[in-house]
Amino acid sequence: MTVRVICPRNKKMKNPLEGVKVIDFTRVLSGPYCTMMLADMGADIIKIERPKTGDDSRSFGPLIAGESGYFISVNRGKKSVVLDLKTDAAKAAVKKLCLTSDVLVENFRPGAMKKLGLDYESLKELNPRLIFCSITGYGQDGPVSQYAGYDVIAQAVGGMMSITGYPDTPPTRVGTSIADVLSGMFAAYGIVSALHGRQTSGQGARIDISMVDSVMAVLENAVVRYGVSGKTPERIGSKHPSLCPFDIYEAKDGYIAIAAGNDSLWREFATAIKREDIIFKKEFETNELRCHNEKKLKKIIEDYTRAHAIKDLLNNLNKHGIPCGPVNDIARAVRHSQVLHRNMIVELDQKKIGKIKVAGTPVKITGLDDKNFSPAPLLGEHTDEVLAKL
Amino acid sequence: MTVRVICPRNKKMKNPLEGVKVIDFTRVLSGPYCTMMLADMGADIIKIERPKTGDDSRSFGPLIAGESGYFISVNRGKKSVVLDLKTDAAKAAVKKLCLTSDVLVENFRPGAMKKLGLDYESLKELNPRLIFCSITGYGQDGPVSQYAGYDVIAQAVGGMMSITGYPDTPPTRVGTSIADVLSGMFAAYGIVSALHGRQTSGQGARIDISMVDSVMAVLENAVVRYGVSGKTPERIGSKHPSLCPFDIYEAKDGYIAIAAGNDSLWREFATAIKREDIIFKKEFETNELRCHNEKKLKKIIEDYTRAHAIKDLLNNLNKHGIPCGPVNDIARAVRHSQVLHRNMIVELDQKKIGKIKVAGTPVKITGLDDKNFSPAPLLGEHTDEVLAKL
Repeated sequence: MTVRVICPRNKKMKNPLEGVKVIDFTRVLSGPYCTMMLADMGADIIKIERPKTGDDSRSFGPLIAGESGYFISVNRGKKSVVLDLKTDAAKAAVKKLCLTSDVLVENFRPGAMKKLGLDYESLKELNPRLIFCSITGYGQDGPVSQYAGYDVIAQAVGGMMSITGYPDTPPTRVGTSIADVLSGMFAAYGIVSALHGRQTSGQGARIDISMVDSVMAVLENAVVRYGVSGKTPERIGSKHPSLCPFDIYEAKDGYIAIAAGNDSLWREFATAIKREDIIFKKEFETNELRCHNEKKLKKIIEDYTRAHAIKDLLNNLNKHGIPCGPVNDIARAVRHSQVLHRNMIVELDQKKIGKIKVAGTPVKITGLDDKNFSPAPLLGEHTDEVLAKL
Repeated sequence: MTVRVICPRNKKMKNPLEGVKVIDFTRVLSGPYCTMMLADMGADIIKIERPKTGDDSRSFGPLIAGESGYFISVNRGKKSVVLDLKTDAAKAAVKKLCLTSDVLVENFRPGAMKKLGLDYESLKELNPRLIFCSITGYGQDGPVSQYAGYDVIAQAVGGMMSITGYPDTPPTRVGTSIADVLSGMFAAYGIVSALHGRQTSGQGARIDISMVDSVMAVLENAVVRYGVSGKTPERIGSKHPSLCPFDIYEAKDGYIAIAAGNDSLWREFATAIKREDIIFKKEFETNELRCHNEKKLKKIIEDYTRAHAIKDLLNNLNKHGIPCGPVNDIARAVRHSQVLHRNMIVELDQKKIGKIKVAGTPVKITGLDDKNFSPAPLLGEHTDEVLAKL
């Protein structure tokens, strides 16, 4: 059950995407993340995989008894059907599937589906209600659309890396494949929007998602800031550009994030760290002055935080109403009481290897069971079942 | 027009969310990003703002003739209605609006809507089809749900910062407010999913999105990797954990991302940088050996790349079929030919200040005009128009 306190589960309610049928040609991360989001909301996903190796990510570590933890973490709740798309029989099977499907998702390079005779133009003749979504590095068209688009390249081209990191470090890749994930998320959003639109239009749609576009779309105020000022945004580490103290600070046993972004929080914060003496000191009196003298202030703050454990700092600051939080490593994040309470770590019961923990769904919505998910499929686990129905 | 080559615009098609009515109580970034995504797909957004100051972000820089570029960049296509929610008349107006609305989105702290008498339980009595979405730092319930959840805190608590950065730097905040944006995106996805589900159930839904949940959900393989190995994932800079060469490299005039992740690409790459001599050198012969000797290899590669301009490197590597891309700063990203071709930089024609450039929508979908967006509203611009209809 999901929205725990507010919304007791209504047993009659179905999951929002129940009955939506998806043919899934995707591999590795961006596409599989998209179809996992659809599966989490109740859609039926038929994942088409090539014989023998399947999705490339089935060989990605960590491996457990030959099965990929990587694959499992983005393919829960899907069915796996092995088809050799070089054969006419396989193509015919896909076309038959299309007749009764709502959505097709793929993340091949532009043109690959056409070579297979399975492009949107061909398939919409068979099923005009089909929603056909492609995810690529650069999109279906444009001067460099044929180039390979790995996550690191999309993060680089889209400008994300240039604003991530400290002033004295090189541009920095976000530590998760955020370009892949973002493009998968925008794809899932586009698909469900198209499903909604189809209710009135009766028409399917073609969706064209690019990883670079997706990165550009989340640069927050960077585009407008550059446009207005002509100044290229730079790397500023973890601090806020115009509020202080608003950064991470080193503690005895790690780091803590503190966000005391106005004068009353500043006064309370200085009191909490027993430095009432600096509250009205000329150089720290206003937010503007604190930003100007940020380095000096950070040193003063860290003189205090370095002498205390994260846990004690949090207790103390929370008592004073200062917004703060631990900078959790993954080991701490997965054990955080709030994270556990929210069912953000869930267990899948996988064939062959047993129980394995993955991240849950952040989309908490009435009636959705956010704790119990079906496992990721073994390669070809559902081939017979699905093909028998055709 | 959007999916340019493949999908000529069909003039009869409506935008996917046309006719969807949204009451928007959101402020700053996470909520406004969500409702901008809904607006981009054609939904009608009525943004409720408090008198005089409105959304806090109306005062965020960069300012142009007193108007906020920050606000404009995440509020295009919405209507602004000023209401003082402390008054009964305002609450009555919101309730009237609810009768004919599909969606309500808010990002106050948990409990604030209840204090106003505008919580889900109250409003669904008036309109059982209402979809009510909240976005908060930690979610509506749980041990720390009442704590303030700024972006930097959610990035910290969710583990994202711990895996972003170089081995010798502190944890690193992603340079854009990714926790805000991700929670806005998951909210938008939840909302359209609920709209779809409502078509069969006839029922609205309660959606509860948390910034920390949203960060946890995009950690890629970090959760499963930790679960399986017991090892806490660390910061590894911009390189790939298990492929080499797959990193960014310093050029004469910036950095370039290169992704030569298999043996044949390696051989081609070494040839491209005129180092055929090291292709079969014992220490670089296999991917595993290259990863093991990554530092040494990076030095060799940068000896070459530092001597050449990005443009020349790209030409050369692309000729050899090596996946690569420039590490664009924002100035370069917004001018990239592909970015421009894809309409990812669009111009809004704002009242008072004229034309201003913002990032476009990455959701390219049949029939959607991805070039011409309505401007962001002035504070209270639509108050009379909207209230007159009630």
